[in-house]
Amino acid sequence: MAAEFQTIAEQFVDFYYDTFDKNRPALKALYRPQSMLTFEQQPVQGADGIVEKLTNLPFNQVIHKVATKDAQPSAEDGIIVMVTGALQVDGQEQPMSYTQTFQLKSEAGSWYVLNDVFRLVYPAA
Amino acid sequence: MAAEFQTIAEQFVDFYYDTFDKNRPALKALYRPQSMLTFEQQPVQGADGIVEKLTNLPFNQVIHKVATKDAQPSAEDGIIVMVTGALQVDGQEQPMSYTQTFQLKSEAGSWYVLNDVFRLVYPAA
Repeated sequence: MAAEFQTIAEQFVDFYYDTFDKNRPALKALYRPQSMLTFEQQPVQGADGIVEKLTNLPFNQVIHKVATKDAQPSAEDGIIVMVTGALQVDGQEQPMSYTQTFQLKSEAGSWYVLNDVFRLVYPAA
Repeated sequence: MAAEFQTIAEQFVDFYYDTFDKNRPALKALYRPQSMLTFEQQPVQGADGIVEKLTNLPFNQVIHKVATKDAQPSAEDGIIVMVTGALQVDGQEQPMSYTQTFQLKSEAGSWYVLNDVFRLVYPAA
């Protein structure tokens, strides 16, 4: 894998948020039955449940603006990706900061999301 | 492992930041030669280099206040932990938001940090 993990991670992040913002149901192809999502503390397992969760969030339009993408190889051919950025949902003027961590795994030559953890980040008091 | 991962992750996070704030060099025990840290985009590998990096950050005193801790099992007995919180360094009144992701792995009955990614999070513009 070597330095490839960086490229794979960047391409994944671009594709993920582009799909999220334009065609949310298509995110399903990135998850498997063993995939886990923890979205604002709520755990969901499996591609079906995860996409149901993501397509039923309480907004229709969302725009993600990625600020930082970091990647590291994890054990046995995985990649850990940590993103920070801002998102803006329909009807709200003020963008919100968020952070999201993925673990990508390869299966039959393609990458899927095994772990996915999402949190809004509030300004430090 | 089952539900234990949650407990292990919470104990790890409490111990990690308590050690960071009170006795930074002692963090070395949590890393191994294969451990990776990406701190504000700067990559370091191995316990020695990581602790050198952490003990030479441009502040003496720091207080971390953890806001959220999320954990998921990762493949082959690992645990992914994502933290958000605030930190306050000496001489600065204003705390800063941060996010940090760890992958914990077990070795001979104890847990170590394989992956560690840290970023400050700035308010969304």
